Amino acid sequence: MNYMLKDENAIYYECGYSCDNALYLRLGSEAFFITDPRYTIDANENVKDAQVIINGDLYAEALNLVTKAKVKKVIFDPKEWSVHGFSKVSEKSKVTFKAVLDFSHKKRIVKSDEELKILAKAAKLGAKAFKNLAKVFAAEGFGQDEYTLTHTAKGILGDFGKFELSFDPIVAINKNAAKPHALATDTRLKKGDLLLVDAGLKYKRYCSDRTRTVQADKDFVFETSQTFSKKKIQKAYDTVLKAHDNAINKARSGMKAKKVDALTRDIVEKAGFGKYYVHSTGHGVGLDIHEMPYISTKSDTIIEDGMVYTIEPGIYIPDEFGIRIEDMVAMVDGKAKVL
Amino acid sequence: MNYMLKDENAIYYECGYSCDNALYLRLGSEAFFITDPRYTIDANENVKDAQVIINGDLYAEALNLVTKAKVKKVIFDPKEWSVHGFSKVSEKSKVTFKAVLDFSHKKRIVKSDEELKILAKAAKLGAKAFKNLAKVFAAEGFGQDEYTLTHTAKGILGDFGKFELSFDPIVAINKNAAKPHALATDTRLKKGDLLLVDAGLKYKRYCSDRTRTVQADKDFVFETSQTFSKKKIQKAYDTVLKAHDNAINKARSGMKAKKVDALTRDIVEKAGFGKYYVHSTGHGVGLDIHEMPYISTKSDTIIEDGMVYTIEPGIYIPDEFGIRIEDMVAMVDGKAKVL
Repeated sequence: MNYMLKDENAIYYECGYSCDNALYLRLGSEAFFITDPRYTIDANENVKDAQVIINGDLYAEALNLVTKAKVKKVIFDPKEWSVHGFSKVSEKSKVTFKAVLDFSHKKRIVKSDEELKILAKAAKLGAKAFKNLAKVFAAEGFGQDEYTLTHTAKGILGDFGKFELSFDPIVAINKNAAKPHALATDTRLKKGDLLLVDAGLKYKRYCSDRTRTVQADKDFVFETSQTFSKKKIQKAYDTVLKAHDNAINKARSGMKAKKVDALTRDIVEKAGFGKYYVHSTGHGVGLDIHEMPYISTKSDTIIEDGMVYTIEPGIYIPDEFGIRIEDMVAMVDGKAKVL
Repeated sequence: MNYMLKDENAIYYECGYSCDNALYLRLGSEAFFITDPRYTIDANENVKDAQVIINGDLYAEALNLVTKAKVKKVIFDPKEWSVHGFSKVSEKSKVTFKAVLDFSHKKRIVKSDEELKILAKAAKLGAKAFKNLAKVFAAEGFGQDEYTLTHTAKGILGDFGKFELSFDPIVAINKNAAKPHALATDTRLKKGDLLLVDAGLKYKRYCSDRTRTVQADKDFVFETSQTFSKKKIQKAYDTVLKAHDNAINKARSGMKAKKVDALTRDIVEKAGFGKYYVHSTGHGVGLDIHEMPYISTKSDTIIEDGMVYTIEPGIYIPDEFGIRIEDMVAMVDGKAKVL
């Protein structure tokens, strides 16, 4: 199989190294990593199982290699390639370029043992960071606004620059948590507020992802067992937790992803909150924060051992509050194991 | 002129609003902003001079609009569009799609008075942040590593979440500053170290960009006047500052960009540091941190009033040190005015 990759994580997956200006080509039994002179040293030190080729004009080099290799067909993902880059490689070539959507994501859907170990470590570091974050918020966070709390979350999640973040953390108070992708506001944290934090870090380039919703009392912790003063919030919270636990307990390899989605959705719907559950149950996690499998009402993907994905049901009541509880699971021996 | 845009900043420039999932079409006298239902409220409140159309399938909607408008030719930038997105709009259409590289950047190369005001304010906020940063570094930074210093720089540049950053700040000590795009390391700041900081923030979506190199003594400041203990560093610093000042003093509207580049490069070369000046003199700044005009040895772009760009000569001696001094200028009444 011949293919060419442009996406940084897709390339890293193949050869253990990548940078922000690179192409990767697999042509028959040979593989090539093309980058510009800025990355000569790093590429030569780190690229595995591929020839490193330095050329400031990546696309011209790719065209040259494809032409020399005398292959007939080369696969590419049309989401990864710009019209500009693709036309530079393909226009003057006699090769057939076959568009395969999500080509690399499909290859990466089942994780290797090594990847599972790294993802478990990423999740563990993420959980530890949540622990520290609760302590810091409980000690200094009351009176601070969401901007400042978010900045603090970035520092602690990334261990002050040691780790990259999987994404910009979400720190949302009360009704701001009702937006699944809330942006920070100048709302300040008060004792007794509902506080939602969704955050993750990257360990060896692999992402962690975690969400907790708590009542921010003195000495609160980001545990799933929570007590809320308001009955309506407690009812919604208990529903989300039940849905979350149900999917973790009952997800099985061999199930369709939409069946796993139903394991959370049915419970939320039965409790009367169905219309406030406005997103899918989860998404795969790996080098990208969102990858396959997608755990949605429409996904026919068969869940298999080695897949890693989030379980993150939520209830969002506009102008009131939002609740989400999220963990990463890996499918091991047919069952979902929380990472 | 008919055109279609995909890039977030390109779209913002046309209609004063954008989000991470949108398309903009100008078809004859009509303009359309297409986005998905998540952005219905924000788009309707903020989009100017364009019809807001909500459709989860952006590309299908664009194809529909292009077809209905009965236009013959639509311009697009092949760098902005993925093969996937472009083919969805173009494959079933009878319209001719004309590729124009950097179409939006070309439109944006000369800034309006309103944009100049915003950019001046962004630069002013950036300069103020550098002042604060020096105070914090001088008070708490000694003994901290580049990771921690970078995290602090992010907080102060962004006013702890109030402003987005133009890019991830560079905070580099001694020989780490010899890499123009240095990544943080665990090197710790000591009194007397050379310290390079390159950072910027976004104000009303427009970027600031600034670099200072200093000797980090007690109570140091990020001013361009600096004294270094080592003669070789002082000589290189004085050369960079002279090059920087020369370009600011002598740049004129009507010059080619490569002439402006020569205003810094000639001085560095005459001082014998030519081979250590490994990049261009500068780049345009606006909604994007890198845009036109590019101030490089090869650029034939004619500098005009209203253009905004950086002057940032540097000298990078591998394994020893790196120096860069960067300011943003706007061309006003034929001359370069430091923002």
